[in-house]
Amino acid sequence: MTRPSGRAYDALRSITLESGFSLHAEGSCLVRCGNTHVLCTASVDERVPSFLRNSGKGWVTAEYGMLPRSTHTRSDREAARGKQGGRTLEIQRLIGRSLRAVTDLKALGERQIKIDCDVIQADGGTRTASITGAWVALKIACEKLLLAGAITRQPIIDNVAAISCGVYKGNSVLDLDYDEDSNAEIDANFVMSADGGLVEIQATGEEKPFSRDVLNAMLDLAEAGGATLFALQDQAVQTDPINAG
Amino acid sequence: MTRPSGRAYDALRSITLESGFSLHAEGSCLVRCGNTHVLCTASVDERVPSFLRNSGKGWVTAEYGMLPRSTHTRSDREAARGKQGGRTLEIQRLIGRSLRAVTDLKALGERQIKIDCDVIQADGGTRTASITGAWVALKIACEKLLLAGAITRQPIIDNVAAISCGVYKGNSVLDLDYDEDSNAEIDANFVMSADGGLVEIQATGEEKPFSRDVLNAMLDLAEAGGATLFALQDQAVQTDPINAG
Amino acid sequence: MTRPSGRAYDALRSITLESGFSLHAEGSCLVRCGNTHVLCTASVDERVPSFLRNSGKGWVTAEYGMLPRSTHTRSDREAARGKQGGRTLEIQRLIGRSLRAVTDLKALGERQIKIDCDVIQADGGTRTASITGAWVALKIACEKLLLAGAITRQPIIDNVAAISCGVYKGNSVLDLDYDEDSNAEIDANFVMSADGGLVEIQATGEEKPFSRDVLNAMLDLAEAGGATLFALQDQAVQTDPINAG
Amino acid sequence: MTRPSGRAYDALRSITLESGFSLHAEGSCLVRCGNTHVLCTASVDERVPSFLRNSGKGWVTAEYGMLPRSTHTRSDREAARGKQGGRTLEIQRLIGRSLRAVTDLKALGERQIKIDCDVIQADGGTRTASITGAWVALKIACEKLLLAGAITRQPIIDNVAAISCGVYKGNSVLDLDYDEDSNAEIDANFVMSADGGLVEIQATGEEKPFSRDVLNAMLDLAEAGGATLFALQDQAVQTDPINAG
Amino acid sequence: MTRPSGRAYDALRSITLESGFSLHAEGSCLVRCGNTHVLCTASVDERVPSFLRNSGKGWVTAEYGMLPRSTHTRSDREAARGKQGGRTLEIQRLIGRSLRAVTDLKALGERQIKIDCDVIQADGGTRTASITGAWVALKIACEKLLLAGAITRQPIIDNVAAISCGVYKGNSVLDLDYDEDSNAEIDANFVMSADGGLVEIQATGEEKPFSRDVLNAMLDLAEAGGATLFALQDQAVQTDPINAG
Amino acid sequence: MTRPSGRAYDALRSITLESGFSLHAEGSCLVRCGNTHVLCTASVDERVPSFLRNSGKGWVTAEYGMLPRSTHTRSDREAARGKQGGRTLEIQRLIGRSLRAVTDLKALGERQIKIDCDVIQADGGTRTASITGAWVALKIACEKLLLAGAITRQPIIDNVAAISCGVYKGNSVLDLDYDEDSNAEIDANFVMSADGGLVEIQATGEEKPFSRDVLNAMLDLAEAGGATLFALQDQAVQTDPINAG
Repeated sequence: MTRPSGRAYDALRSITLESGFSLHAEGSCLVRCGNTHVLCTASVDERVPSFLRNSGKGWVTAEYGMLPRSTHTRSDREAARGKQGGRTLEIQRLIGRSLRAVTDLKALGERQIKIDCDVIQADGGTRTASITGAWVALKIACEKLLLAGAITRQPIIDNVAAISCGVYKGNSVLDLDYDEDSNAEIDANFVMSADGGLVEIQATGEEKPFSRDVLNAMLDLAEAGGATLFALQDQAVQTDPINAG
Repeated sequence: MTRPSGRAYDALRSITLESGFSLHAEGSCLVRCGNTHVLCTASVDERVPSFLRNSGKGWVTAEYGMLPRSTHTRSDREAARGKQGGRTLEIQRLIGRSLRAVTDLKALGERQIKIDCDVIQADGGTRTASITGAWVALKIACEKLLLAGAITRQPIIDNVAAISCGVYKGNSVLDLDYDEDSNAEIDANFVMSADGGLVEIQATGEEKPFSRDVLNAMLDLAEAGGATLFALQDQAVQTDPINAG
Repeated sequence: MTRPSGRAYDALRSITLESGFSLHAEGSCLVRCGNTHVLCTASVDERVPSFLRNSGKGWVTAEYGMLPRSTHTRSDREAARGKQGGRTLEIQRLIGRSLRAVTDLKALGERQIKIDCDVIQADGGTRTASITGAWVALKIACEKLLLAGAITRQPIIDNVAAISCGVYKGNSVLDLDYDEDSNAEIDANFVMSADGGLVEIQATGEEKPFSRDVLNAMLDLAEAGGATLFALQDQAVQTDPINAG
Repeated sequence: MTRPSGRAYDALRSITLESGFSLHAEGSCLVRCGNTHVLCTASVDERVPSFLRNSGKGWVTAEYGMLPRSTHTRSDREAARGKQGGRTLEIQRLIGRSLRAVTDLKALGERQIKIDCDVIQADGGTRTASITGAWVALKIACEKLLLAGAITRQPIIDNVAAISCGVYKGNSVLDLDYDEDSNAEIDANFVMSADGGLVEIQATGEEKPFSRDVLNAMLDLAEAGGATLFALQDQAVQTDPINAG
Repeated sequence: MTRPSGRAYDALRSITLESGFSLHAEGSCLVRCGNTHVLCTASVDERVPSFLRNSGKGWVTAEYGMLPRSTHTRSDREAARGKQGGRTLEIQRLIGRSLRAVTDLKALGERQIKIDCDVIQADGGTRTASITGAWVALKIACEKLLLAGAITRQPIIDNVAAISCGVYKGNSVLDLDYDEDSNAEIDANFVMSADGGLVEIQATGEEKPFSRDVLNAMLDLAEAGGATLFALQDQAVQTDPINAG
Repeated sequence: MTRPSGRAYDALRSITLESGFSLHAEGSCLVRCGNTHVLCTASVDERVPSFLRNSGKGWVTAEYGMLPRSTHTRSDREAARGKQGGRTLEIQRLIGRSLRAVTDLKALGERQIKIDCDVIQADGGTRTASITGAWVALKIACEKLLLAGAITRQPIIDNVAAISCGVYKGNSVLDLDYDEDSNAEIDANFVMSADGGLVEIQATGEEKPFSRDVLNAMLDLAEAGGATLFALQDQAVQTDPINAG
């Protein structure tokens, strides 16, 4: 089998995580995963949603969007259509859950961190790239809170990163780009923590059902790829002006 | 460990699938899974979405809703709030994908079947109950099309059913009710086909990450429960007026 | 004249009022009026709308909806279309006004009871069935408040029930089903209290104007039908678990 | 009993119907009913709603709105709030039905007349004033179609006009202004045709139920008032530039 | 060059400002500028927007709307379409900014004046007519506040009025009506204060760019026309019942 | 006077126009004007709006958006709020008009070019930067159409670029950044064509009215700045892969 990109079945695309990309945000990271580019920012808001008021606990939430021409053909602007689509809502709920799985909400205190993941250019895997970059922005924003004395211990207790796998022409492959993704039989997204845990699995066999063997093969690929992502994340946090400056 | 309901860790709730519940729909099924009751109807529409016009292929789609007081405390009516929430959109997209995974869209011809899953009473597991019942409604609607000569072969090529699993107080359990669900550490939904394939996996460790062992334990439980669901589905199709009458 | 259903011109359809249908609601009633089935629930909310804050008075309000395939052909889901239609708003305003006409809002205290009327299956007369069933759900919810000591006297001071009349093939008839309704020259809905009063009249001659004689003939039919409805309501309240248990 | 306005119980307010008020509309009428002023315009649209395409039949529909400060205190602008309220939808549906009851839709041909009733100043009775004025605008627009040869016979087969009645301090009174209306026990709107028929009755006893005697007393008042309205309507049509010029 | 209306290139249309037009509003003015008629009302609201709470400062804001058949052909009702269009929002923002430029918000105290400009009939120049009339309504409302002792000095520190200019068949002309406006090469709106200052300029050469000479020619025309407008405004304030009565 | 940035009163910020930034768009340009960064893309759509169907003419339109954290403090996402604000609509209408002023719509043929201007980072002057960059994206998309033989002559007949001016601490200054803009007495945006024409002027004295002298001073500054912008635009078109490759 040859992948359209010529990559090996277990090869990630070229990935860079550029922290400190945004002038204004408390934390930010531009993820480039091949031709998929996502800008992730973290904004600290001293107010919590009403269900957490007076609870002593904080919250992490996420919003996701695609620039209209981030895609091969232009998509309608969601703001102009007057609502966010189902795919958008599904992805931003996934990002928020994934980040909260590694956040000690008590340690964060009664404040909210809002993550924005905006796709500047799309070539497959925008949701997993968003999670990987969002974690960097979130971690930096929390370091800034620590530095400022607003909190007394780091609420982010582990890394969380995500990668897609799929079955393309009968083979399990890692990190699908758009060409593969649009022809994949199975499409799966794995969100993982650095300690080896699974945070979220979304696997879909819309074309046809898949076996447990296939699931396991994809899990193996995802776990191997995860190690690279965690290392890149740590490096990006280190090179952010807050640490590097 | 004792489950709140007293059930064994691998025991389904009492489940009934009542077909022919609706006077008007081309196919219908009232699913009762313990105290979770969902009415599923299938409506045949001779028009397809525009992206399928002149393709010779049909479509299956789904909508999901909860009656405002199907829940413990009243939820706002989505029609009054003016939009469907993210959870609703996520669930109805899942139902549609799951059904399409076992539908031969060419055999269906250029028409659309719209599935409505409306939760009359909720006690956990409404999305999986919806999928299980939706399949019955869909299958009956297709049998009606066959009988009427509108199509020449059955487009539904396998059963699809779904069940939830989770980790409650450290143990993997099958078919969580609301009491368990709201206290579960891990929450997973498995959509399966009768031939043993997996159609969709959604597993979430919002509280904390989970291991592959836990994933496998839940998969074992789900597969065992699936057999019962497929049998109940076949029986419901047989007892529908279209077959029984 | 023969009615499509074979009923006498002054005959109601077979009507049952099943109280205690909902596990969660403070009061509930499933009305079956022939093939028209409406689930009515009453939910107690300890907050009042802002215009009543600190007034010592409570409020009763209603919402109405139809399941998309409760009708002969599928109707669009209002939640998906993003707004409730004019007919829906008109009906739920009518239900709320009708119930408030027999409610002592001071006796209710500063709380709100929200009535949901959801049409499970439609065959004409859904708005009048909703009113008749809503009253049962409301009454039971108030009995529960009394029993719990939250209020000291019953705020529901009389029964309220509703029935449709019309002119079908030149004759005034009671309780139209869909077949008659869609061919009726005149369409009228009467909301009545048990003491013989009129709470609301909505009579429409869209096809052509009608005379006062016709109005009086329809009123006579409605009043005769009302007696049956009030008796069924009292019985439904008696058989609710709160009283029967 | 003294009415706040000093009028006799059966006295209308001072009413004028000024046709030809609008430079652009095919028919128009400014109704002044005391301090209630409504501008009614009729716009001819050569397209019909899709359900009438190729039916050979036309349609008459209506929209209603209030200027934000037509009322005692300012109301939110519906366009700014992003939706029309239930009261607005209810009123515009009533206006449309009332006009269609006296329109021969076949004679109108496959075109639509859209009536806009916009309340410039409100002092009670805006919906009945709207109907009375809307008929004038509609009739003139149809005369213009006749004159232009677009249709061959007048589709408006009778006058339709409306007036409110109520019970104020125990007495049935005609044509309530805002002071009376906001204190009325019973509130009723009667839409009548010139041949003595009833087109629509909406009677509400929100405060308390009412008797058939009260209904009959209000009907007597409305019928007496109707004669004046029909005469004013005919005169307004005669003085429109289309006839007077 | 002959203008369609026969007016000289520097001639305003016949303009009247009728104050006290509305029974309910704190200030009101019906502007008639040829066949363009706009009703402007000022409503005093004792609450300010949240960003001004506890600031000691007030606010002036505006909303703009067109009756559906104020135009040559009927436009959709914005309330029915569910949102205000871009042109509407742009105009109402312009009106608000223009009025605030001559308002001492501290002198107004912590309250808000909401201006509504509703176009009853349109024949070009509705936005400039709105500003000219809105100022009259605002001034009168402030006089009423002064008279009532709610404020101690007049917050309106100068007149503000507006007029359109354009280039029609190569000549700069003042106060375009619809016929000219829809054929103009350049379209400009000038908002001016009585002391000779410019409050806002919006000049557009959508067809083709324009020179500074043309801009200056239009500015000369606008300034000459402004004098007439300021005089009419002062007279309208004087003849309002609050002063004339 | 010292400007916060230390720039001379007539100095532009450091400006770069990077064409070919987007992988997918037919034309693209990332404008960096100091810390204001806007991504402009041009998308060719072979369908025109319905009002141009069968007219032989094309259309150019624009949409504008800001990433939620492009600003100093996070702004709500318009897609999540369900509508575009008035400022957004105003800006995107301005961009569209400005581009159409230099486009020969007949030469474009019956197709539409949609420009998206998305603010990645904001520091004042986003609307003028958008226009300047949008022109580059538009020009490149048209060159691509020419190259592909879809059109036979270049429809873009001149450059169009924009710059802001204002009065800061009593002095007229060019190209305001956020610090100046939020303290400016006068705020003006000038859209200019390379042949020395004015395409659009928007000048606002919300704080207080301004004189014609001030207007002229700002115009002088804008015209001087324009020359630099036009040169940068031409260079960006030359270095786009379509020309440079």
